[in-house]
Amino acid sequence: MKNLIVGQSGGPTSVINASLAGVYEEAKRLGYNHVYGMINGIEGLLEENIVDLDKYLADKKNLELLKRTPSSYLQTCRFKLGTYVDHPDIYEKIFDILDKYDIDSFIYIGGNDSMDTVENLSDYAIINKRRQNFIGVPKTIDNDLPITDHCPGFGSAAKYIATSIREIVRDSVCYGVKHSTVAIVEVMGRHAGWLTASAALAKSDDCEGVDAIFLPEVPLDLDKFVDKVRILAKKKPAIVIVVSEGIKTTSGEFVCEMGKDDVGVDAFGHKQLNGCADVLANLIKEKTGLKTRPIILSSLQRAAAHVASLTDLREAEKVGKHGAKLAFNGETGKMVIMKRVNNNPYKIKYSSFNNIHDIANLEKKVPLEWIDQENNYVKDELIDYIRPLIMGEVKQYYKNGVPEHLIRKD
Amino acid sequence: MKNLIVGQSGGPTSVINASLAGVYEEAKRLGYNHVYGMINGIEGLLEENIVDLDKYLADKKNLELLKRTPSSYLQTCRFKLGTYVDHPDIYEKIFDILDKYDIDSFIYIGGNDSMDTVENLSDYAIINKRRQNFIGVPKTIDNDLPITDHCPGFGSAAKYIATSIREIVRDSVCYGVKHSTVAIVEVMGRHAGWLTASAALAKSDDCEGVDAIFLPEVPLDLDKFVDKVRILAKKKPAIVIVVSEGIKTTSGEFVCEMGKDDVGVDAFGHKQLNGCADVLANLIKEKTGLKTRPIILSSLQRAAAHVASLTDLREAEKVGKHGAKLAFNGETGKMVIMKRVNNNPYKIKYSSFNNIHDIANLEKKVPLEWIDQENNYVKDELIDYIRPLIMGEVKQYYKNGVPEHLIRKD
Repeated sequence: MKNLIVGQSGGPTSVINASLAGVYEEAKRLGYNHVYGMINGIEGLLEENIVDLDKYLADKKNLELLKRTPSSYLQTCRFKLGTYVDHPDIYEKIFDILDKYDIDSFIYIGGNDSMDTVENLSDYAIINKRRQNFIGVPKTIDNDLPITDHCPGFGSAAKYIATSIREIVRDSVCYGVKHSTVAIVEVMGRHAGWLTASAALAKSDDCEGVDAIFLPEVPLDLDKFVDKVRILAKKKPAIVIVVSEGIKTTSGEFVCEMGKDDVGVDAFGHKQLNGCADVLANLIKEKTGLKTRPIILSSLQRAAAHVASLTDLREAEKVGKHGAKLAFNGETGKMVIMKRVNNNPYKIKYSSFNNIHDIANLEKKVPLEWIDQENNYVKDELIDYIRPLIMGEVKQYYKNGVPEHLIRKD
Repeated sequence: MKNLIVGQSGGPTSVINASLAGVYEEAKRLGYNHVYGMINGIEGLLEENIVDLDKYLADKKNLELLKRTPSSYLQTCRFKLGTYVDHPDIYEKIFDILDKYDIDSFIYIGGNDSMDTVENLSDYAIINKRRQNFIGVPKTIDNDLPITDHCPGFGSAAKYIATSIREIVRDSVCYGVKHSTVAIVEVMGRHAGWLTASAALAKSDDCEGVDAIFLPEVPLDLDKFVDKVRILAKKKPAIVIVVSEGIKTTSGEFVCEMGKDDVGVDAFGHKQLNGCADVLANLIKEKTGLKTRPIILSSLQRAAAHVASLTDLREAEKVGKHGAKLAFNGETGKMVIMKRVNNNPYKIKYSSFNNIHDIANLEKKVPLEWIDQENNYVKDELIDYIRPLIMGEVKQYYKNGVPEHLIRKD
């Protein structure tokens, strides 16, 4: 009888717990005796903050609720493990704790940094002839992990963004020609524009869509940006523009940090915490006199499980199950990846990749050839890539008017 | 055969179109020949921007989509009609246009200002012996209309807020004890705290809820506010605080406007457009050193039809139908109101109120006895009042992964 431990790391997503549910279900099915959870990832493991998941998840209803609960059920951390050359003590401690609980397999659900941790631990185990094996299960709303076609978590965030933007567009157009407004919507994704590009999926027969999309892959020319708004304002009264939180100007400065050094202190003498939507809304107001409204979608992008994508949720579950299979088969130092076998009908194949450092240290950005010539919208290829990932709705359990969740009561 | 015209005015809601659908359905059932819509309310009427709704709504599927489409299908306006003493020409023009289209009844779906318009037009018709009658149908997310128990539009906004806050809380607690954060969530409602209070509905067996709620009915003591956060931070790592956008300090200044005059200019020399969440997040950061995150729920509060309350949608439809009935019966200068006959089980009775100026010029605020002694949370009575209004979910029609809407193609 073998034992397994699973943890969650990095920023949360709407479906990261579906991966946890997948790991648990499959590990139990394969015959693992104890399936443990580490609370707060590696950070909690080092403090032996470990729970037996049977206590929480043996109940089928709980497992279904878990899949519908956003953010990390086991909580998360942003712990940088470092190399075993620098911190042999920490590595020894981790393995001692794993031995103490008689743990054979270790699964980590996370993004770039978490995959680095998986590879480091796996390397250490091989070199030091420790029995444990280590598997990575991908998650990130940013969709910036390379090698895998896409990442669980991204589809639900994209569905939330497309849905919300359709509603923002409806809200925006209702005043007609007499009251022009420019809404600037800020979307997450500091370096990769996948989420910002998802705004393009709002457009359809029954929605005008947005007027411009600016990804972080291309520097923003502020003069051209203002000109674009001026031209739009001559043609239509309600303008909706979507920008990435991480967009930089052509001179290399983050838009969100503009003017933070010498101006922009508030009543308490403290620098403003504006997002780039605020900065750009101010710019437009100043240069054109148009009424502006900054809208920052904020943390709901990674937590709005009430509008999760069914495709995304099922895939999150399946990468978790595939991870448990790899672990059971004794594989180590591998990350589960997805390959798109076909786009229409959409079909995914699950496999694994074993040069995890290649994944950990690379960010997959939106290819420049998927951005239009004017650098202010995306091409159909990009929409076709994202569309299948937002398809399908998750049946939620509602109680007292709000979606029911599963939380740990230790 | 009689004809009716209907318009929408003021800020939109998630279910304002369900009222329009109700008016249309009931007016046709009662035997009105033409049911016209004015585009952009009174503003459009004055330009004869009028459509025959049969063109758009005769199809049953369209009518169902309309009920699920947020924001004003007929578009809206913020037109102040003024009195007929000051603007007799405008009144004459309106009645000439109504005569030209052989219109007998006029229904206006809106908030305080729109009800003022209804009363003024009705008075004018009576004094000048014009044949038209005028009925008001209430809508507002702010729930600040007096006389009626509550307003259609509020329940869906409250459901969106409670749902989103539950997800924000899950997102907020996932880092555990090592990374304290204070999330400041800003909710709409400049003078009345009903929407801000809805955050209390997030709390349940499966959600920790928020740590403090500050309504605009009570001035905010900034020192006590910071102290409250300091005390909370000693007890728990993740703090979520909800504030109304319209909250003022004890010295009577809007928090959102603090420091706007002499500091807080951005890179373009323009005053910052911060919300009060930004100001308070900066204050906390400055005074306590804690990490803060301002979250402004913004226009999605009035547009997130994808998570509309079924109770609210059905009530919006019914006030529309009741308005059409009143119009058909020749009533004038009345607003449809709702009376709560019973709270558990929840039961509403529809009637009308004829001193509309009393409604137009009063704002219904949260009673002070429903706010707790520390002025930083709400009492159970308030939660019991709101809960029935967020109950039930609307089955959405999804197409290509996003909710389907109905838009006019003139």
